[in-house]
Amino acid sequence: MLSEKMVEIGRKRSAIRELFEYGKARAAEIGAENVFDFSIGNPSVPAPKEVAETIAELLLSRDSLALHGYTSAQGDMGVRKSIADSLNRRYGADFDMDEIYMTCGAAAGLSICLNAVCVPGDEVLLLAPFFPEYKVFAEKAGAVVRAVPPLGDMSPDMEAMAELISEKTKAVIINSPNNPTGAIYSRGCLSAVAELLSARQREYGHAIYIISDEPYRELVYGERKPCFIPGLYGNTFICYSFSKSLSMPGERIGYIAVPRSMEDSRTAYAAVCGAGRALGYVCAPSLFQYVAAACCDLSPDLQAYIRNRELLCTGLRELGFEFVEPDGAFYLFLKSPEEDAEAFCMRARKHELLLVPSDSFGVGGYARVSYCVSAETITRSMSAFAALAGEYGLGG
Amino acid sequence: MLSEKMVEIGRKRSAIRELFEYGKARAAEIGAENVFDFSIGNPSVPAPKEVAETIAELLLSRDSLALHGYTSAQGDMGVRKSIADSLNRRYGADFDMDEIYMTCGAAAGLSICLNAVCVPGDEVLLLAPFFPEYKVFAEKAGAVVRAVPPLGDMSPDMEAMAELISEKTKAVIINSPNNPTGAIYSRGCLSAVAELLSARQREYGHAIYIISDEPYRELVYGERKPCFIPGLYGNTFICYSFSKSLSMPGERIGYIAVPRSMEDSRTAYAAVCGAGRALGYVCAPSLFQYVAAACCDLSPDLQAYIRNRELLCTGLRELGFEFVEPDGAFYLFLKSPEEDAEAFCMRARKHELLLVPSDSFGVGGYARVSYCVSAETITRSMSAFAALAGEYGLGG
Repeated sequence: MLSEKMVEIGRKRSAIRELFEYGKARAAEIGAENVFDFSIGNPSVPAPKEVAETIAELLLSRDSLALHGYTSAQGDMGVRKSIADSLNRRYGADFDMDEIYMTCGAAAGLSICLNAVCVPGDEVLLLAPFFPEYKVFAEKAGAVVRAVPPLGDMSPDMEAMAELISEKTKAVIINSPNNPTGAIYSRGCLSAVAELLSARQREYGHAIYIISDEPYRELVYGERKPCFIPGLYGNTFICYSFSKSLSMPGERIGYIAVPRSMEDSRTAYAAVCGAGRALGYVCAPSLFQYVAAACCDLSPDLQAYIRNRELLCTGLRELGFEFVEPDGAFYLFLKSPEEDAEAFCMRARKHELLLVPSDSFGVGGYARVSYCVSAETITRSMSAFAALAGEYGLGG
Repeated sequence: MLSEKMVEIGRKRSAIRELFEYGKARAAEIGAENVFDFSIGNPSVPAPKEVAETIAELLLSRDSLALHGYTSAQGDMGVRKSIADSLNRRYGADFDMDEIYMTCGAAAGLSICLNAVCVPGDEVLLLAPFFPEYKVFAEKAGAVVRAVPPLGDMSPDMEAMAELISEKTKAVIINSPNNPTGAIYSRGCLSAVAELLSARQREYGHAIYIISDEPYRELVYGERKPCFIPGLYGNTFICYSFSKSLSMPGERIGYIAVPRSMEDSRTAYAAVCGAGRALGYVCAPSLFQYVAAACCDLSPDLQAYIRNRELLCTGLRELGFEFVEPDGAFYLFLKSPEEDAEAFCMRARKHELLLVPSDSFGVGGYARVSYCVSAETITRSMSAFAALAGEYGLGG
């Protein structure tokens, strides 16, 4: 007599978590140094020192009741102002603090936005490959999920998208830099998406929202920078998290931005407040609201990720593997030398390489390699990758 | 094309929040010292010094990646063990860490439990007077809410409850010490509830859950102590928050306990995990998980609340007001001298006394007085209460 759906979601670990748990068990068996665990997207670069300094300073300077007390449901006013100012400075945006709503991380932000816009029977489009939890959040909000297949370069197939959008479509989730590919969608690609959605909004006479999941926005290594999507398409919610940029994923702090460019933006902001309230969020954790405000201009120390990306790309290329060129985040999307990605990942596992098969991300034939590990792990894993390549007769 | 329901919930502030905002505006107008704001349940006693000490020590002793990293979804293993041990020590319970699930406060806990057990069309019973957000959380989980009216002493009318329970009833929310009355339900009362629910479970052939919301469990001032409800009734979820006991409501940290005594308790625990995941909770804030574990045996400094309760009860009694004797929490439920509680509270407002009319708590004819304020505020408010009493010809 429990909710069968919730039991199922609680019992069935994600493929990522499953592999991560296997990795921990395997490490206990044969030693952590002998397991090459590329399963999970946990930052490997410590939080900037300013995080600890800010906490220490807040403990000294602020009254306990103010520091640990409830903030208003949408977040402390000063915090929202700092974040709006930082966005305006860095992205040439024009946010006001009343367009910012503080959340318990991006997952909460996504769940809140989906519940704010969806009613049962609505449809939500995901661009494959996509982070598997999107489906869980969207379905809990009462929506039916449709996956847009990718082209060969992992950008969305616009023709397929045009066919999948219908009068029932309420939102499209976009994630750039992308998990699992590390790719940044080009401006051209996003403009095409914006154009298609704009046309359909007019045709159907109702809004179709982009929900832009941007936890990796600051983890960018090459020439390409992520687009500021509200600049292309007004009806865009931004869901941000400080999990990756400040390396504090456990602290659950982020925000939703509801730009004025959105149709009925104050009503949309009210819907966000309503969904946050109804789901039990009350307010985002107060101490870390203040930490986020103080540290929101900081960039993470990207050198370690840049070095890892270089080591991994060079090594895998030399071994004859193919992959999507990663622009950001800390993921590399490796083409499986055989069609069945699960079989490939099982074979990799025999060499103690833990890779996530792409099937749960909504496409077949790839494996996600999370390179938020030590450089040494990557270097030492190369002989295992070489043996794996050998099994498929890659490289030469 | 947004969710109308979420827009409505986002726009319509709770009566409590509404009054609190009025109080802030009024304070700006005539000076904070001239407004007697008894509207909100925000702790007025600072967090125990051990909270700041623990944070400082964690910053020094723990690696940043471990301190701020994801914990497992159900909470850090060591944290759950500490909390289970503390419950066992203090309540003679027998919890194992696998029965504890860390949450972003009690509101998240309630929302998660309701979503874990309810499917659309189920009914949830609330015992009036009740905290108004219960209705918001239960309805969002797809349930229909039924309110059990109270007897004159504000304990539940068991006959009415027997009539309201039906085959659709999935859960009953119990809150003792109670918000808004401050009353603790007697063992006799809870035994009667347990007996009634047990009989109906047998009759209908399915579980009916008690969801026990216990944020005020440690804020108890008299002889009466709250019952350990799983000892009376197996199918009980406990939702706890450290908001009041450690005076850190903004930090959003608490837990759900799913006792082994529950039918299919592992399945129920899985449903809790599933609902937490589907609602976007990921994990409870990591640093404050460790703080809660280190401080979970601490009692708040109750002296200030005890003194406030004494001052308020004595003062109001002398003026001829009637009220429910408060056993705990920091609320006093004042009988309105006229039938219309809203009219009474408007009249009180003319004397700068901000009291919450009882209507949104599901009963008429009372006003909630939150005495988590300075003792000075209470002392100084007495002339305003005297003038108000005078208008009704109380006391003589």
